[in-house]
Amino acid sequence: MSLSTISTLVGTFAFLLVLSSAKRYEPNWESLDSRPNPKWFDDAKIGIFITWGMYAVPAYQGPWFQYWWHTGRKNETEFMKGNYPPGWTYADFAPDFTTWFYDPDYWADVFQDSGIKYTVFVTKHHDGYTLWPSNYSWNWNSMDVGPKRDLVGEFVTSIRNRTDIVVGLYHSLFEFYNPLFLQDQKNGYKTHQFAKQKSMPELYELVNTYKPEVIWSDGDWMTTDDYWNATEFIAWLFNDSPVKDTVLVNDRWGNNIKCKHGSYLTCFDQYNPKVLQTKKWESGITVDQCWSYRREARAIDYLPIDEIMTRLIQIVSCGGNVLVDIGPNKDGMIPPIEEERLRQMGAWLKVNGDAIYKTKPWMYQNDTENSNVWYTVSKYQDPPVVYAMHLGWPEKDTIVLGSPITSSSTQVTLLGETVPIKWTSGGATGLTIQVPVIIPTAEKLIAWTFAITNLKN
Amino acid sequence: MSLSTISTLVGTFAFLLVLSSAKRYEPNWESLDSRPNPKWFDDAKIGIFITWGMYAVPAYQGPWFQYWWHTGRKNETEFMKGNYPPGWTYADFAPDFTTWFYDPDYWADVFQDSGIKYTVFVTKHHDGYTLWPSNYSWNWNSMDVGPKRDLVGEFVTSIRNRTDIVVGLYHSLFEFYNPLFLQDQKNGYKTHQFAKQKSMPELYELVNTYKPEVIWSDGDWMTTDDYWNATEFIAWLFNDSPVKDTVLVNDRWGNNIKCKHGSYLTCFDQYNPKVLQTKKWESGITVDQCWSYRREARAIDYLPIDEIMTRLIQIVSCGGNVLVDIGPNKDGMIPPIEEERLRQMGAWLKVNGDAIYKTKPWMYQNDTENSNVWYTVSKYQDPPVVYAMHLGWPEKDTIVLGSPITSSSTQVTLLGETVPIKWTSGGATGLTIQVPVIIPTAEKLIAWTFAITNLKN
Amino acid sequence: MSLSTISTLVGTFAFLLVLSSAKRYEPNWESLDSRPNPKWFDDAKIGIFITWGMYAVPAYQGPWFQYWWHTGRKNETEFMKGNYPPGWTYADFAPDFTTWFYDPDYWADVFQDSGIKYTVFVTKHHDGYTLWPSNYSWNWNSMDVGPKRDLVGEFVTSIRNRTDIVVGLYHSLFEFYNPLFLQDQKNGYKTHQFAKQKSMPELYELVNTYKPEVIWSDGDWMTTDDYWNATEFIAWLFNDSPVKDTVLVNDRWGNNIKCKHGSYLTCFDQYNPKVLQTKKWESGITVDQCWSYRREARAIDYLPIDEIMTRLIQIVSCGGNVLVDIGPNKDGMIPPIEEERLRQMGAWLKVNGDAIYKTKPWMYQNDTENSNVWYTVSKYQDPPVVYAMHLGWPEKDTIVLGSPITSSSTQVTLLGETVPIKWTSGGATGLTIQVPVIIPTAEKLIAWTFAITNLKN
Amino acid sequence: MSLSTISTLVGTFAFLLVLSSAKRYEPNWESLDSRPNPKWFDDAKIGIFITWGMYAVPAYQGPWFQYWWHTGRKNETEFMKGNYPPGWTYADFAPDFTTWFYDPDYWADVFQDSGIKYTVFVTKHHDGYTLWPSNYSWNWNSMDVGPKRDLVGEFVTSIRNRTDIVVGLYHSLFEFYNPLFLQDQKNGYKTHQFAKQKSMPELYELVNTYKPEVIWSDGDWMTTDDYWNATEFIAWLFNDSPVKDTVLVNDRWGNNIKCKHGSYLTCFDQYNPKVLQTKKWESGITVDQCWSYRREARAIDYLPIDEIMTRLIQIVSCGGNVLVDIGPNKDGMIPPIEEERLRQMGAWLKVNGDAIYKTKPWMYQNDTENSNVWYTVSKYQDPPVVYAMHLGWPEKDTIVLGSPITSSSTQVTLLGETVPIKWTSGGATGLTIQVPVIIPTAEKLIAWTFAITNLKN
Repeated sequence: MSLSTISTLVGTFAFLLVLSSAKRYEPNWESLDSRPNPKWFDDAKIGIFITWGMYAVPAYQGPWFQYWWHTGRKNETEFMKGNYPPGWTYADFAPDFTTWFYDPDYWADVFQDSGIKYTVFVTKHHDGYTLWPSNYSWNWNSMDVGPKRDLVGEFVTSIRNRTDIVVGLYHSLFEFYNPLFLQDQKNGYKTHQFAKQKSMPELYELVNTYKPEVIWSDGDWMTTDDYWNATEFIAWLFNDSPVKDTVLVNDRWGNNIKCKHGSYLTCFDQYNPKVLQTKKWESGITVDQCWSYRREARAIDYLPIDEIMTRLIQIVSCGGNVLVDIGPNKDGMIPPIEEERLRQMGAWLKVNGDAIYKTKPWMYQNDTENSNVWYTVSKYQDPPVVYAMHLGWPEKDTIVLGSPITSSSTQVTLLGETVPIKWTSGGATGLTIQVPVIIPTAEKLIAWTFAITNLKN
Repeated sequence: MSLSTISTLVGTFAFLLVLSSAKRYEPNWESLDSRPNPKWFDDAKIGIFITWGMYAVPAYQGPWFQYWWHTGRKNETEFMKGNYPPGWTYADFAPDFTTWFYDPDYWADVFQDSGIKYTVFVTKHHDGYTLWPSNYSWNWNSMDVGPKRDLVGEFVTSIRNRTDIVVGLYHSLFEFYNPLFLQDQKNGYKTHQFAKQKSMPELYELVNTYKPEVIWSDGDWMTTDDYWNATEFIAWLFNDSPVKDTVLVNDRWGNNIKCKHGSYLTCFDQYNPKVLQTKKWESGITVDQCWSYRREARAIDYLPIDEIMTRLIQIVSCGGNVLVDIGPNKDGMIPPIEEERLRQMGAWLKVNGDAIYKTKPWMYQNDTENSNVWYTVSKYQDPPVVYAMHLGWPEKDTIVLGSPITSSSTQVTLLGETVPIKWTSGGATGLTIQVPVIIPTAEKLIAWTFAITNLKN
Repeated sequence: MSLSTISTLVGTFAFLLVLSSAKRYEPNWESLDSRPNPKWFDDAKIGIFITWGMYAVPAYQGPWFQYWWHTGRKNETEFMKGNYPPGWTYADFAPDFTTWFYDPDYWADVFQDSGIKYTVFVTKHHDGYTLWPSNYSWNWNSMDVGPKRDLVGEFVTSIRNRTDIVVGLYHSLFEFYNPLFLQDQKNGYKTHQFAKQKSMPELYELVNTYKPEVIWSDGDWMTTDDYWNATEFIAWLFNDSPVKDTVLVNDRWGNNIKCKHGSYLTCFDQYNPKVLQTKKWESGITVDQCWSYRREARAIDYLPIDEIMTRLIQIVSCGGNVLVDIGPNKDGMIPPIEEERLRQMGAWLKVNGDAIYKTKPWMYQNDTENSNVWYTVSKYQDPPVVYAMHLGWPEKDTIVLGSPITSSSTQVTLLGETVPIKWTSGGATGLTIQVPVIIPTAEKLIAWTFAITNLKN
Repeated sequence: MSLSTISTLVGTFAFLLVLSSAKRYEPNWESLDSRPNPKWFDDAKIGIFITWGMYAVPAYQGPWFQYWWHTGRKNETEFMKGNYPPGWTYADFAPDFTTWFYDPDYWADVFQDSGIKYTVFVTKHHDGYTLWPSNYSWNWNSMDVGPKRDLVGEFVTSIRNRTDIVVGLYHSLFEFYNPLFLQDQKNGYKTHQFAKQKSMPELYELVNTYKPEVIWSDGDWMTTDDYWNATEFIAWLFNDSPVKDTVLVNDRWGNNIKCKHGSYLTCFDQYNPKVLQTKKWESGITVDQCWSYRREARAIDYLPIDEIMTRLIQIVSCGGNVLVDIGPNKDGMIPPIEEERLRQMGAWLKVNGDAIYKTKPWMYQNDTENSNVWYTVSKYQDPPVVYAMHLGWPEKDTIVLGSPITSSSTQVTLLGETVPIKWTSGGATGLTIQVPVIIPTAEKLIAWTFAITNLKN
């Protein structure tokens, strides 16, 4: 992300003064947590999580396929026994990871249309296969076996060339079956061979090569951050790395760290607490039931667009960012049904985006009277605009809102429509909006956004 | 299809008397064309076309991939050169046609939900590969290479076990590169080695084994029906075959036959004349731009559901049947976006099906005043119900219909809604319906159906 | 084989007059058997049998692999279960039949050096796979799947371009699992679909395309020659085919024919009766224990050169021709140990060939006193030369021969040596040869040939 | 090797006292070179070199295939372009390294019969692929990809269970394309990431797991022994490893070390100086022209057995050990022609082995008068026996030896024969042996050994 892009996003240069200050961070969480987040992240609100890797070859049951197979789970065991020769190994899948139709320019265009503002691209999952030609993963990376391409590099280039989307990268610290890790584990994590020779060198390599502005760490739950020496890496990232002024990290750096430290918290997968959180957080929504591409997925396994948007609205109302997860297949294609969901999301955001981007939680998240309504408030407008998002098409003639206290100058509009909105004040008990007659669209079947200004509260 | 099923479909046993009569047909088109169609077909209106075969392995550019590749078209040539070893042949694709996830029970359930009433399953396309273990296609059929399954047999069993859907089968007479065909061709079709040893034996085998109630012939355009000896086969089919009472054939039996003879006409692909046809006809709608699965297909290549339904309504109004085409992949999965389209179609038909099934063209097809409105009329109800299908959500308060002449007892209802419909007669100039206020649904965004009874015309 | 080649072989043009006579043969065995054999065959004595085909891919247990596997024999069943995915079929082996290193020019040179005079090249074995692009074996021939080459055509061209070796071809009438054959079999061979559409058209195609001078038929044991209509084909071959003057056929044309009719008899595999036969015959010697390439073969499975030559000498003495069988691998390479055996044979024949080529059985085959000695006599020399071949290096100072009755002008020489041979006559009881002192060579360890002229008998 | 085996080999326990002494070696060459060699090695004389690895899959042009391909040599480039899809990598060969017929028990039996006394088994060549499940070569070892077997472990077990053959292992220090090595190289070998994390840990792992008694290092020529820290490893090997008393190392530990330091010298490949060497040395003989299996190899590319034995006799005469190299194929089979050579060698050694095992160079190596004759002398017999090996079958009646000075008690015998040997002394100018009449055998065509005792010199 260029500086000019950042400034566009936040509408001000002020934060640059903060970020360029000479303050250095110590390799401990107290110091690291004291760093203010680069503002672009909270403004962006919606990112895309791209879970892609060697597991797209078996493409069965998701990215943990290898683990479930090797630990004898029934589905995976029968799948392998029924279809592959005896003795097949996970590494044998590699030649079939062809990515023949991988066109990151097209991905960039789809993402642009879908309204997402940053990416979290999986560069290495728990199987240890790197989607870039890492020096630390010889013959188990995307240049040596399978695609024979730098999947990460091509992705980063396309995103940056064609869009204003910020590039973030996912990286798994641990690997299911790396023998060096298994040795360290057997030694009670008193040796650090794997961390020192594999995972940490990869992280430095990723940052220096691709300059990602989010490091989305994972695979942290086996042991503590001491084993990984995570704080040293993050201190370097914040003090000296090429992205020191703009980067954020998540919270998965050890089983003692998650949900506690980092630029923001992810806590656990598909997190949706529906109440305001004290620290910046982020939550994923998988379009399929599963993080990565599954060949066995049926239409009914994919979330309907209204369910996706409902979760997104709730999460943003409560101060979270949203990561919408997709799983490209081994050909490098985004499943068309997922592309369609992204475009449906983009169509809704084109109308209602003001209620999402560059907003912050309002004093209420969910309306006190009307559980279908969720709020945000604009960050950079004066006077601020309160956005009331009503889930689904109103079934009655009127919508009652209990939380906003109107003033004499209060104004209400409906995003995407020019029809004047009639409403009556309930004084301290909110207001009642008369539902206008409009021609329905697919977007309006999902949620309506009322923009309200000059409230008393 | 069991007899009880047929009786359910047509609501009467009368036609059985006709079909079981002793009349025998001669192997000439005049005699064959004199046979009345089994009634189930016109009542059924919507079938599904399933284009599946070896081309699902390259899965690039559709079922003519082999031809385009071998005749040097750029896309296919570069695809092969860029991705496969030198000397690769079409037959080399066979081991990869695995169909691991082929579950015809699930297909049957999806089809049931989608509202289709018969199938046209591709048993052999122009590449000559048979999806059943044919005696006449050794080592080039689904039991010998690839799936090692009788794909046709499993399909037929599932459809018949789980649904009332009628089974029809597609079969290509000619094969691009069969050396016997090429020899006959070189001989100016004066020899008939290929027809006699390959295509016609296959057809008899298909009928005797699977008892299909539609034979959807194709690959007819190279030469005349004499070469194929088509009339002899059809005479046998109508006189002596196990499906003689219920079967229909299409019109693709020679380049002198198409659009002229057969139980019904298909004329050319994607046919949609928008005016009433004199003979029973049928037209295909491909959900993707292409008949078979393409890996390169993007979301935007698939028809939106409203476009599919618009064509369907127009075709049925003009006396046609509709075949909705899908292309399963090599795993035997229906692409989820296609499954979703089928389910969306089914949801609309669940509300509006009375306007489609067991109807016939009305005296008007497209309303004289309102080009958005298309008509059908019920076949088996007394008094008959005229169905006016309005494409899209009405944008104004009223809908003017020019074609129906109302009487004093005329009644108008809106399918799927209980709200009373207010309307005013225009006398000889039709009627004006006041658009009621209803809660929009995805189905109502596609088309509204007004059922009108007791018209003067 | 060109005419000039033939004339070279037989040393005279006389036989051509006979062969070009107008006599026509009837399609019955009495007539066919009345045809005199083209002389080249008996003069040639040694041919090479080349067993190559799809079974070179599994390359396990030989050319009947498919049958043994499908009928559940233990070795093959475990091999497949242990190494291949479930559902693997024989046809799935096809893409791996690459023949990348197939260089028939080099083969021709090896054969030339080995002293063989004709070939029997397997063009189709019982698996039905044709090594030429047959019009009757679509997608199951060497041009469509696997090599993508005309293996037969390239072979024929190289042999004829580089050597005087006569080209003969092997062809199996029946195919283990061809569904047309299985149908005819089920019908008690009263239908002839397979014979008429598959095997016989292939034979005509082979003859017209490659003009082989031996048709080595096989796969005949399932039923009688009537089913195949063999006599009609052979009558055509002898009367009208492009090789009518030079071709021979073997005896495998029906289970009632073998060891009875044909240009010569093969009776059963590895036939070595050790006594004179009344009709011309031929016997095979497999260098490995097995006819085709086996990956599991060990050095000790290959016949030592002295064992090969012993059999060869015995067979020729008794009026037989010898076919030395080799099994190229899927790469198209002759296993080096087999190439070495061929070259060892050639080295022996270079010294001793006069005792083999253009000879006929003598009045004795095996010496009456000395079981180590076998005889032939020259056909075209006057006075004739009797060849006494002594197996192995003589262990004593003298060799006693009981069968030859010497005259006063009898002369004895040792082939390949100039040392004069001392011998004494035993009158009516043979002669005693004093073993000369010579420098041993690998060839002399195998067998010594004494040439004897002017015998009384 | 068990202690009892060692004692059998050397005929005395004396050396054990030396080896078990408390002397420790310093990690410098002066100290390491001061260690006396375990005696078994010089007594053993003949080892087998087994060059087997991933290059047995392309099996073209030998173990440097990868390098020649990647650096654009014509043969390899055309081979890949003509046969493989674009973008194929060396790692893509892995699934095809199946080793289905690998039977180390049979190998052990063949080696036993061939007369070899120790092995040098390639555990990792320059491609970096390990034939054992190394912790330091994840997804690029024989357990993770390809065989899914511990090829080294099975080998070691079979050899030790069935024979008295000593197990030695080959290991390449450098790897053509390991990115860590390339990085160190780029850094002028000032960083040691590759040596420390990959090659040296592998060596320790090999020794601790398999307890080899020869470490045959290779891939040393890129840089000096300092980079590898070789002396530290060897000091550990000699002082503390589980094979400290019996192990030897060769001389390939850096481009400054070869032909200078180590337990013995290998200098360069196929070394045969034909004069006595001052330090213990060893030389390889490749049965094929090439170290590893090549599919394109023809019979004429394999050394004839007399050429192999000639070199072996010359090398042993000059104080060298011989490594006879074979190249198993990807199925795990020793090419039968190589197995045959080994068995021919064994047959010769069975007769003449006294002249090879437990001998040392005599005062003359090649006879002064007769260049066909090479000498050794027994180490452990009193009086010592001088062996004169005459290459090939004697072409004259007498053999003149110029080097041995006979005494009155001198005796001459011919190994493998009981016939008395007649000879006459030439006094100070040697002796003349009268060639006895014996029945020739294949072994006697190779070389005759005269055992001579009680010489003056």
